[in-house]
Amino acid sequence: MRASQVREGFVLVNAMHITASVFINDNESGLHQDYEKWLEKLAPHEPVAGYRHNQTGEDNADAHMKRQIMGREVVVAITEGRLDFGPWERIFYGEFDGRRRKRVLVKIIGE
Amino acid sequence: MRASQVREGFVLVNAMHITASVFINDNESGLHQDYEKWLEKLAPHEPVAGYRHNQTGEDNADAHMKRQIMGREVVVAITEGRLDFGPWERIFYGEFDGRRRKRVLVKIIGE
Amino acid sequence: MRASQVREGFVLVNAMHITASVFINDNESGLHQDYEKWLEKLAPHEPVAGYRHNQTGEDNADAHMKRQIMGREVVVAITEGRLDFGPWERIFYGEFDGRRRKRVLVKIIGE
Repeated sequence: MRASQVREGFVLVNAMHITASVFINDNESGLHQDYEKWLEKLAPHEPVAGYRHNQTGEDNADAHMKRQIMGREVVVAITEGRLDFGPWERIFYGEFDGRRRKRVLVKIIGE
Repeated sequence: MRASQVREGFVLVNAMHITASVFINDNESGLHQDYEKWLEKLAPHEPVAGYRHNQTGEDNADAHMKRQIMGREVVVAITEGRLDFGPWERIFYGEFDGRRRKRVLVKIIGE
Repeated sequence: MRASQVREGFVLVNAMHITASVFINDNESGLHQDYEKWLEKLAPHEPVAGYRHNQTGEDNADAHMKRQIMGREVVVAITEGRLDFGPWERIFYGEFDGRRRKRVLVKIIGE
């Protein structure tokens, strides 16, 4: 962030893939396991044939659901050249399908 | 987007109505049917009397829930004058109530 | 908002704490009670031991889930010096844990 020379502005961080999420939460591994289990309950992978999307030859409809719950993007304030985070805020990338290499977009605006 | 003459910036696209969503996902009709069915399972319309909000004379409490899962807004980077999308990213408007004409706000900042 | 002298831009409003949300929806108390009940159904507090995160000594794993459904942040357009809201849009802070004093970040960019 310091490299961008933006002192006051916003940074947008988003998944570029539609079965993935960028989200902000706690850096605690137990919580991330809880998320996986919870998302599987809300949007189960099986039965694969239960989703119309999977008739296209994919089997990742559930991943498109999970991504909506966890979100596509975060916008974080930059103040005095730093990410203006609360005490426990960390940015994570969540991958719910996993077939392809994934990219994250980071874009900064400000001055 | 090219009409705005912004080369580097952000575009905000949001539903202006609180029973609707703007979201980014796949342009595949089966998936959109899956979303409808899935949202109905997570936030069922019936029984209408199961929601306090519906005591106000509305029957759309479920739509306010569905909209939270799918989200109000997206922020998309503009790079070299174009929406900086991943390969399958498309913006959609999701309407969960449908009583009124709905509007979307599009706001661009940058230079 | 008028105090900021920004006429055209974006305002970012986000929870600084990871068991809380900032969201936009209806200012109707019945609906907010519906949200509480609904979130408790999707991410129940009990059994506390059902979440790995709670092995850290916390008992708020469910609050981290609820916050993902309701969202961390909103970005609102500023047009002619005012929040460019739809007719019923209001910003709310949702607290799902409640142990600590919480803060909201408000950051404006534009000109």
